[in-house]
Amino acid sequence: MAQKPSIAKGTRDFGPEEVNKRNYIISTIKSHFETFGFMPIETPSFENSETLMGKYGDEGDRLIFKILNSGDYLSKVDDALYTKKDASALTSRISEKALRYDLTVPFARYVVMHQNEIDLPFKRYQVQPVWRADRPQKGRFREFYQCDADVVGSTSLWQEVEFIQLYDTVFSSLGVEGVTIKLNNRKILSGIAEVIGAKDKLIDFTVALDKLDKIGEDGVKKEMLEKGITEMAIEKVQPLFSFTGSNGSKLESLKTMLSTSDEGLKGVEELSFILTAIDALGLKTSNLELDVTLARGLNYYTGAIIEVAAPERVKIGSIGGGGRYDDLTGIFGLKNVSGVGISFGLDRIYLVLDELGLFPPSVTTTTEVLFLNFGQNEALYGLKAVKALRESGIKAELYPDDTKMKKQMNYANKRGIPFVVLAGESEMDKNTFTLKNMNSGTQDEVDITALIESLRA
Amino acid sequence: MAQKPSIAKGTRDFGPEEVNKRNYIISTIKSHFETFGFMPIETPSFENSETLMGKYGDEGDRLIFKILNSGDYLSKVDDALYTKKDASALTSRISEKALRYDLTVPFARYVVMHQNEIDLPFKRYQVQPVWRADRPQKGRFREFYQCDADVVGSTSLWQEVEFIQLYDTVFSSLGVEGVTIKLNNRKILSGIAEVIGAKDKLIDFTVALDKLDKIGEDGVKKEMLEKGITEMAIEKVQPLFSFTGSNGSKLESLKTMLSTSDEGLKGVEELSFILTAIDALGLKTSNLELDVTLARGLNYYTGAIIEVAAPERVKIGSIGGGGRYDDLTGIFGLKNVSGVGISFGLDRIYLVLDELGLFPPSVTTTTEVLFLNFGQNEALYGLKAVKALRESGIKAELYPDDTKMKKQMNYANKRGIPFVVLAGESEMDKNTFTLKNMNSGTQDEVDITALIESLRA
Repeated sequence: MAQKPSIAKGTRDFGPEEVNKRNYIISTIKSHFETFGFMPIETPSFENSETLMGKYGDEGDRLIFKILNSGDYLSKVDDALYTKKDASALTSRISEKALRYDLTVPFARYVVMHQNEIDLPFKRYQVQPVWRADRPQKGRFREFYQCDADVVGSTSLWQEVEFIQLYDTVFSSLGVEGVTIKLNNRKILSGIAEVIGAKDKLIDFTVALDKLDKIGEDGVKKEMLEKGITEMAIEKVQPLFSFTGSNGSKLESLKTMLSTSDEGLKGVEELSFILTAIDALGLKTSNLELDVTLARGLNYYTGAIIEVAAPERVKIGSIGGGGRYDDLTGIFGLKNVSGVGISFGLDRIYLVLDELGLFPPSVTTTTEVLFLNFGQNEALYGLKAVKALRESGIKAELYPDDTKMKKQMNYANKRGIPFVVLAGESEMDKNTFTLKNMNSGTQDEVDITALIESLRA
Repeated sequence: MAQKPSIAKGTRDFGPEEVNKRNYIISTIKSHFETFGFMPIETPSFENSETLMGKYGDEGDRLIFKILNSGDYLSKVDDALYTKKDASALTSRISEKALRYDLTVPFARYVVMHQNEIDLPFKRYQVQPVWRADRPQKGRFREFYQCDADVVGSTSLWQEVEFIQLYDTVFSSLGVEGVTIKLNNRKILSGIAEVIGAKDKLIDFTVALDKLDKIGEDGVKKEMLEKGITEMAIEKVQPLFSFTGSNGSKLESLKTMLSTSDEGLKGVEELSFILTAIDALGLKTSNLELDVTLARGLNYYTGAIIEVAAPERVKIGSIGGGGRYDDLTGIFGLKNVSGVGISFGLDRIYLVLDELGLFPPSVTTTTEVLFLNFGQNEALYGLKAVKALRESGIKAELYPDDTKMKKQMNYANKRGIPFVVLAGESEMDKNTFTLKNMNSGTQDEVDITALIESLRA
């Protein structure tokens, strides 16, 4: 019995239309990465396990896909350890490689290993799949693409300004108008924690604050109390739960609130620089919003924190994010290399474009013309014309079998091919082709030059 | 101590220049796939193990990378089996997924699973990485790209004609002139085996014959004898060891030699159809050669066998290959779907282009203009111009820090950026920019319109 095939849980096949739509997004992003001076790199799909393990927390370690060693992988496992039948102890003995979990850690490895070939600041982009052993659920996959741009080796805040411009440029260019680019700074969060006297609980504090949208003010406060942050401390932070107004007035309010924290004031200064520059440069279609509740899951941001929310009419949440991490490559022994970068969420952007009908029709264009097949001589005659059309960049095909005309026409219809060419003995005698428009049904008898011209138009 | 990072054995990092060069090849191939009417699909990097295992022979099974199950993967292994400490028995219990080994088997799975959405004949292309646990060695990698185009659902020989045209078109378009497209047919090989009375030894025979280039006539004969093919049988095959002349004369000679084999004569007829059609259509720069020693490693070809050899001046061997397999999807329960396809060997094509100097200079173009940074106001002034340049599609950057001019110029030099813009107070007053050509050293003071014009040229 032949097996009934299935696809691995949490993974997807992409048919022609989906690939074309995904590539449209990817190539739009890439083209702007390039005008902004970013250069492409690619790293391998799997890394030595020690490169990845321990970089994403315990949860991350669990979600990393490990690759089984090849050959007799048990021969090097000693019996004492083997007998324990302890998966977590056995793993490192039978698996030395793991699938990429994100693009940031492999990039850090890349920078360290290639530091002598790289000129700092180094602006790289990378668009590749990553893999996570998450429980598959709606909209969450075990294989998905990340589209990242990062700069390493510069602490200049112009980078942050550039990244905000880049987000605005890409989303405007995709037609996704009205995204909100949210901006915060880790130093603001640290400053707040300092001012309220809960400096040692910064992570708890930010993790709780980050949930404001989801669990509301009461939920956040409850979580903070559970984590040992005092009511008095929470009292001091009260204004943050209803922070409205212009970015400028928010900044003023923060400046007052954080007046006793050097780090907090540094954060205010950084935000101020970025907001002023963006004001002067302008944004095409996006909104920039100072959002002090923005913390994001990752603990490694040390400066700017950025997140992009889809336009409000699309209920889809974050479609991109990033920030600055002052010691990107320290984990691999190269100190004091600051990094700042952003990421585009391909799958969600796809959903946004689909929902808003923003994919240009040309993206899904398939073959433009199908030559019907009336037999060997006619096919050869047609194929000569097909060859000429392709040389003019026109997507052209010959139906491979000289079956019934109806079947061939059906095939053209089903595939949405807009034109067919009929060329039988009569056309061959006159060196012409009958071009049929599948939408209007009209037919024209033309020579090869006119055929190319009509299909080009 | 921070760890010293390393890259997994047999894998590669690709820097900006390599990525750009690889993408140049890939996008050239893709664009011709599309004018020939092929549509892109993508399948997941890993498949359920049963989809892949047993499809590539024992050696293939060994070379497939298996992914360890997540979580407590030992809990479901029963003690009796576990105690044996037998890797080959344990693997299927602790690993249910495996990395793609090629693109053909996943494609067959795709066709079967999506048969209701697909219109036959279905022409798909797929350009994705595959993974093999080969011993890493020069030019052989554990992760590499395959670039495949296949048609399923048509037995028409026009497909073979089209694929030969496609090879010719792609290699001509890449500037690789003078490749040799070798053509054979499995039915010819079967016919030969039949005529010499060694029908049951067809695989041994073809495997040995395939080595003619490598181990010579004596070596092949020795191997055939070892495999139990008689001297008398080998005697009959003698003309094949020095098969020269035109394709037409080779065909005539085969027709005589195979006159008692129906299958052999069918092969002659098929080859004759293809050669005649290609004669009529012409090839741009490639040679087409009937090569009866061509068998290729894969046993699943049932009709045409195709291989492309790099131009003789480049000693690099095969840069592509393919063929017809009459029952592509039978392994997954869908019978009688014929497939025919070809593959491009990206890594080797890269080496050919590199050796022959065929990468266009534009491929490796980096940022076109760097704005020097003389301080906050100047930077903002510059960034406004940078924004305008990018909107015209020009790759432009601002140096992020206002460090010494010499350092900034060095950076431009090292990265091979052809132009820098200097804009200080004097330029700001006049609303101009000083554009310096880094090659000639000449400088011009221009307004924004002229700046865009100069850089566009």
